[in-house]
Amino acid sequence: MTPAAASQAQTTAQRVRLDALDRFCRNALVAAGTDGATAEAATRGMLHASRLGIDSHGVRLLDHYVTALTHGRVNPRPRLAFESGGGAVATLDADDAHGARATYAAMDRAVELAQRQGIGAVGIRNSSHFGPAGAYALAAAEAGLVGLTVCNSDSFVRLHDGAARFHGTNPIACAVPLGGARPWLLDMASSAIPYNRVQLYRSLQQQLPEGTCSDADGEDTQDPERTEMLAPLGAAFGFKGAGLAGLIEVFSAVLTGMNLSFEIAPMAGPDFATPRGLGAFVLALRPDAFVARDVFEDGMRRYLEALRASPARAGARVLAPGDREWAEADRRAADGVPLDPVTVTAFRDLAARFDLALPFAENG
Amino acid sequence: MTPAAASQAQTTAQRVRLDALDRFCRNALVAAGTDGATAEAATRGMLHASRLGIDSHGVRLLDHYVTALTHGRVNPRPRLAFESGGGAVATLDADDAHGARATYAAMDRAVELAQRQGIGAVGIRNSSHFGPAGAYALAAAEAGLVGLTVCNSDSFVRLHDGAARFHGTNPIACAVPLGGARPWLLDMASSAIPYNRVQLYRSLQQQLPEGTCSDADGEDTQDPERTEMLAPLGAAFGFKGAGLAGLIEVFSAVLTGMNLSFEIAPMAGPDFATPRGLGAFVLALRPDAFVARDVFEDGMRRYLEALRASPARAGARVLAPGDREWAEADRRAADGVPLDPVTVTAFRDLAARFDLALPFAENG
Repeated sequence: MTPAAASQAQTTAQRVRLDALDRFCRNALVAAGTDGATAEAATRGMLHASRLGIDSHGVRLLDHYVTALTHGRVNPRPRLAFESGGGAVATLDADDAHGARATYAAMDRAVELAQRQGIGAVGIRNSSHFGPAGAYALAAAEAGLVGLTVCNSDSFVRLHDGAARFHGTNPIACAVPLGGARPWLLDMASSAIPYNRVQLYRSLQQQLPEGTCSDADGEDTQDPERTEMLAPLGAAFGFKGAGLAGLIEVFSAVLTGMNLSFEIAPMAGPDFATPRGLGAFVLALRPDAFVARDVFEDGMRRYLEALRASPARAGARVLAPGDREWAEADRRAADGVPLDPVTVTAFRDLAARFDLALPFAENG
Repeated sequence: MTPAAASQAQTTAQRVRLDALDRFCRNALVAAGTDGATAEAATRGMLHASRLGIDSHGVRLLDHYVTALTHGRVNPRPRLAFESGGGAVATLDADDAHGARATYAAMDRAVELAQRQGIGAVGIRNSSHFGPAGAYALAAAEAGLVGLTVCNSDSFVRLHDGAARFHGTNPIACAVPLGGARPWLLDMASSAIPYNRVQLYRSLQQQLPEGTCSDADGEDTQDPERTEMLAPLGAAFGFKGAGLAGLIEVFSAVLTGMNLSFEIAPMAGPDFATPRGLGAFVLALRPDAFVARDVFEDGMRRYLEALRASPARAGARVLAPGDREWAEADRRAADGVPLDPVTVTAFRDLAARFDLALPFAENG
């Protein structure tokens, strides 16, 4: 069984409609004590990921978020405070808000700034787990702007030639509006491989792709059981991936005065009482401040037509960033979102704890 | 002999002082008919690369530039025209200027915009060969700002799972000021390997690193003779490198209405009469528009101290972006720049053609 097929098999136990998931997440968050804006933003972020097939950042995080929101790590009723940094930039002190609450608000402000100034950037202070980086970039694209987001996270990725965890998986996302069509959407970690893929290979007892993971000495390993850290993107030229992670670190943490990756408490706890002091950075850019809208749209059309017509290797096909995700979104809109067994169990516990209706029917 | 040692051996025939190279490039460009601003900017760009050891973009390009400037591809006396796109952005129509002439001017404008607005971005139209992306980012850092530059170039890199050249080597560069110290400086192509490295392995008849190059069918090859295209950064996860190249393509070419990589005439000719219609994009950002200067500087200090103290794999050491280049700059300031035999010959021809003194003594 390929990892993809196994992943599919693992998660077909229960498929749940998007609107039911949306309602359940929202209700659970409000029941856990959040204000409406936090419930709205956190749900929107998780549903973005669950809809597009990025399950690591989807509704499986609900249980984690409820823990963080009820134990002091994340503020369930934050008071967001923007400070202007000049004509086109601002800083948001998010008061330890949920990452989606902070980042959607920051991107809204970046979009406002870009509407006036052509470009707008917001540094975010005192945020928490970022969630899916692409969600906030997409929000800009849905407003007709190019959106760019970056965030650092707790150390998991070695340096090039390094033998210790240093950077987080530090993602970068960018979304580009395509007129009526769904946006071009890139959302990638700067590590060679996502950690959830390591977990999958571990559960399947399969070998990892070469040059993506390292053992405790920083040496390459293809054994998921021996994997102690991820490699930076780029294998023999991993200084590129490490450099990219560093760029993201500077924008996310240094420009905001927040914790560097190696200063951030682990996402998984055990301390859920202390805010993690996460920074992030978002940018929006109005295409027609640079070039006529029809020229911009023609450029994207030429680019994507040529890309999709570009020859593929035998047995493969080429895709633009987002193609796979939007196709998955269509499938999930029709067939629902597959929930893994751990998440199903967590949902049952949350439903019992907060006296909520489950988003799926119980069988037998 | 390792590639690095071979590269060294290949290029130790002739070492030339930086100030002599600067004078020779400047004089040759003016003799070829350029205005003073073009000679100044083109020389500054080449010397940046030759000083930091990025020889592919150094003075070896002088001969190429003279050809392009005297045959119509590049305008030796351009009239640069900025158009404001709103408060914090502008577009530069570079009138087919030399890439360094256009891009230094664009970064100067981005810095001015960022001084007022916190951030500034300039899209460049009708430029030519970009030269070293890091040179322009560095110009921003030397003014105390964070600089970011991207450019696309003629097709050379396949898509993920692709079997044809699609993107250029599309570089991204970023420079971050470090108070008194020399800036953090990242300058990387989004391909898995630089093309000049393929040429080096070819001349040494050595195997290429795995996952970096492809044959005519897009299949991996380690044989430099069979290499028809470069792989995107990321090997098994090459959709990340391809996505990054795409992001750079959008900012460089789509936001400026210029040629996409696969529409750009090859740098090497044979047509040197027609402008290539290259776009590029530069951004500057003022750190103290986001965070107090001392907090920013403390963040960079903590980051770099931890990076340099991070454990390395056995026999290796970890470096920050720019560390290797700044160390090489020190060596070259003392010992001069090694010139390869092809460049020595080209310099002799240029000296004869324009009646210039050579920057090195002729032996025997």
